[in-house]
Amino acid sequence: MRATTIHAPGDIRVEEVPDPKITKPTDAIIKVTAGSICGSDLWPYRGHNDITPGDTIGHECIGVVEEVGSEATDFKAGDFVIVPFDHCDNTCAHCLNGMQAGCVNLGFTASGQAEYSLVTQANGSMVKTDGLPDQALIPSLLALSDVMATGWHAAVAAGVKPGGTAVVVGDGAVGLCGVLAAAQMGAERVIAMSRHEPRQAIARQFGATHIVAERGKEGAARIAEITDGIGADAVLECVGTDQAIKTAFAVVRPGATVGFVGVPHDVELPVRKMFQLNIGLAGGMAPVRKYLPELLELTLSGAINPGLVFDLTLPLEKSPEGYTAMDERRAIKVLLEP
Amino acid sequence: MRATTIHAPGDIRVEEVPDPKITKPTDAIIKVTAGSICGSDLWPYRGHNDITPGDTIGHECIGVVEEVGSEATDFKAGDFVIVPFDHCDNTCAHCLNGMQAGCVNLGFTASGQAEYSLVTQANGSMVKTDGLPDQALIPSLLALSDVMATGWHAAVAAGVKPGGTAVVVGDGAVGLCGVLAAAQMGAERVIAMSRHEPRQAIARQFGATHIVAERGKEGAARIAEITDGIGADAVLECVGTDQAIKTAFAVVRPGATVGFVGVPHDVELPVRKMFQLNIGLAGGMAPVRKYLPELLELTLSGAINPGLVFDLTLPLEKSPEGYTAMDERRAIKVLLEP
Repeated sequence: MRATTIHAPGDIRVEEVPDPKITKPTDAIIKVTAGSICGSDLWPYRGHNDITPGDTIGHECIGVVEEVGSEATDFKAGDFVIVPFDHCDNTCAHCLNGMQAGCVNLGFTASGQAEYSLVTQANGSMVKTDGLPDQALIPSLLALSDVMATGWHAAVAAGVKPGGTAVVVGDGAVGLCGVLAAAQMGAERVIAMSRHEPRQAIARQFGATHIVAERGKEGAARIAEITDGIGADAVLECVGTDQAIKTAFAVVRPGATVGFVGVPHDVELPVRKMFQLNIGLAGGMAPVRKYLPELLELTLSGAINPGLVFDLTLPLEKSPEGYTAMDERRAIKVLLEP
Repeated sequence: MRATTIHAPGDIRVEEVPDPKITKPTDAIIKVTAGSICGSDLWPYRGHNDITPGDTIGHECIGVVEEVGSEATDFKAGDFVIVPFDHCDNTCAHCLNGMQAGCVNLGFTASGQAEYSLVTQANGSMVKTDGLPDQALIPSLLALSDVMATGWHAAVAAGVKPGGTAVVVGDGAVGLCGVLAAAQMGAERVIAMSRHEPRQAIARQFGATHIVAERGKEGAARIAEITDGIGADAVLECVGTDQAIKTAFAVVRPGATVGFVGVPHDVELPVRKMFQLNIGLAGGMAPVRKYLPELLELTLSGAINPGLVFDLTLPLEKSPEGYTAMDERRAIKVLLEP
C-alpha cells in the first residue's frame, strides 16, 4: 500500500510498504477514508523524538472496515468507523475504571496517513456510524480520532465546570478543540491564548469569549485583569513545552487544576508553587474511546463541528507538503485523502 | 512570655520573648492550652530551611481567647478555640471557593510552642467549642490545628472514595491521620506503608487494613500484589521527599491521583509517567479552616480520635527534648504544655 513514512528529521516520504495484516483475533484492518497530521507528529519531524528510519507515521484516521479478526465480532467489512489513536480492549480493570489510555492491551494506530491501517483491539476501540456518513462530516469525524477527544480530555482533566473561567494555552488543533470542549461544558468565560488571526477566528467560532494574544508575563497579566486578579478556574495546557506549562501555572487560581494533554518535552513542573497554591495537575494521553460515543453524538447532531480545525486538505501523495505547511504554521491541521 | 525559639540547626531554646500584641482589628491573642511540634518543624531543625536566629517556632496550638481586635466579633475572651496553622479571612474569592490555604489575607501561627499566640484573621480562622473541652479531648483537638486536617486534605486531594484502595506513604503523624481520613471516607482497603511497630499499631487503630513494611521497589511490588496488579485508587503522599514521591507514583493506578501534603524538598516530578499513565497530582498546604467544622464534629462525637498520634507530652520548658525525640524518631509527635 501507499503510506507516509519518516526517514529522518524533515524527511517525510510517501512510498510503498507492506499492507497491514490480521495477526490476532482482536485485530481489524481499516481502509482509510481520511487520515491526518497531528501536532505530535511534528516532534519526530523536528528531530525531538527518536525514529526508526522508514517507519510509517500517523495515528489519526477514519475509514471503512476491510477485514476483521475472529474476535472482532462487533464489526464487519463495510462498517464505517472512527479509530481512536490509542486502542484499548475496553474490558480490563483500567478501561472499566474509565482510563482506557491505561489499558493493559494498549495499542496505537501506526499508519493513519496511508491507504490501510491496523486496529489492534477493534471491538474495544472502534465506534461505527449508521451507514456511510455525509462527506461534509468527514473532517469532524476524523477530528474525533484524536484532537477533539484530546481537547475534551484536557477540559475534563482541568475540571471545567459550568459558569467558570477556562484558559486554553495553545492554539494548535488540540487547543482549539479544548476551547470547543470548555465552551460545550458550559464555561462562562473561555480565554484562548493565541497570536494567530486565523486561529483566533476558529477559537471564536468554537466559543472563545476572550482572546489573549500576549505571551509569558504579559499574557498572565492580561488574564489576571480579565479574572479580577483571581486567576482561571481551569487551565487546559495543550502544547507540552516548558513555556506552555509555565504559562498554565501562571494563570491558574489557587485550588484549581491544570489539565495537560500536550506531550511533555523538557518540562519541569513547579512543585513548590503547586504545593503552596494547591494547584493540581491532571491529564495525559486521552482515553479517546471513553469520550467517543458522546463526541460522536455531539458531532452527528451538529452541536460541535471540530472539523473546522482542518484548513488544508491534500491527497495522500502530498503528505510531505502537509508536514511542511504545519511545521511552518501555514496550516493548522492537514487532512490527507488516500 | 516563654516561647520556643530556633537559633541554628539543632539549636532549639525556650526563652523569654515579647508577648504578641493586637495590631490589626482582625487579630486575636490566644493563651495556649497545648501546642505541638510538627514534622515540618524538623526541616529547619535539620538545616534544610533558612531561619532567622532567635525566631519563635511552632504553628500548631489550641487555647483560650485572651484578647480580640475590634473586628474579631465572633469571639470573646474565655472562648476555647482551635487555631488553624494557616489563618484565612474566609471571605475572599479563594476562601469562598474552598481554598482557604490560598486566602489573600493568609497568615500563619508563629508561636504555637509558647504561652501566647497571635491569630491574624481570628473570625475567619478559629473555631470554638461549647465551653471548655474535657481534658481527655485536648490531644485530638490539638491535632485538628494541622496534622488531622492535613491528612484529611491528602485524602480529599487523592480522591479517596468508598470501596476503593488507598495507600498512605509516610507514617508520621500526618500519614497516620491520612490513614484515619481514608478509613473515615470509606476506603475498603487502607494500606499504610510503615516499618515502625508503634506507628503500625496506631495505623491499625486508625483503620489500616494492610501494613506494608517494605520500601522502594519491594514496597511497590507488595502493593501490586495486594491490588492484583492494578495499583491504588488513591495515594496519600505525606512526607515530601523525592523518595516518598517516587513511591507514591510507583503504586498508583493509571487515571488516579496522588494527593500530596508533605512540603516538597528536592522533589522531581515524573512528568512523562504522569502523562503516559494519566496520574494526577493534587494537594498542597491544607485549607484547615475548610475542614475544621466537620473534623471538630467527628472528634467531639468520638468518631475519630486523632490525638493518638501524640506519644510524648512535655512541659513547654522541655521543648528542645521534644525536638530531639522527634528527630531521632523516638516520638511520633510531641505535645507541649505551657
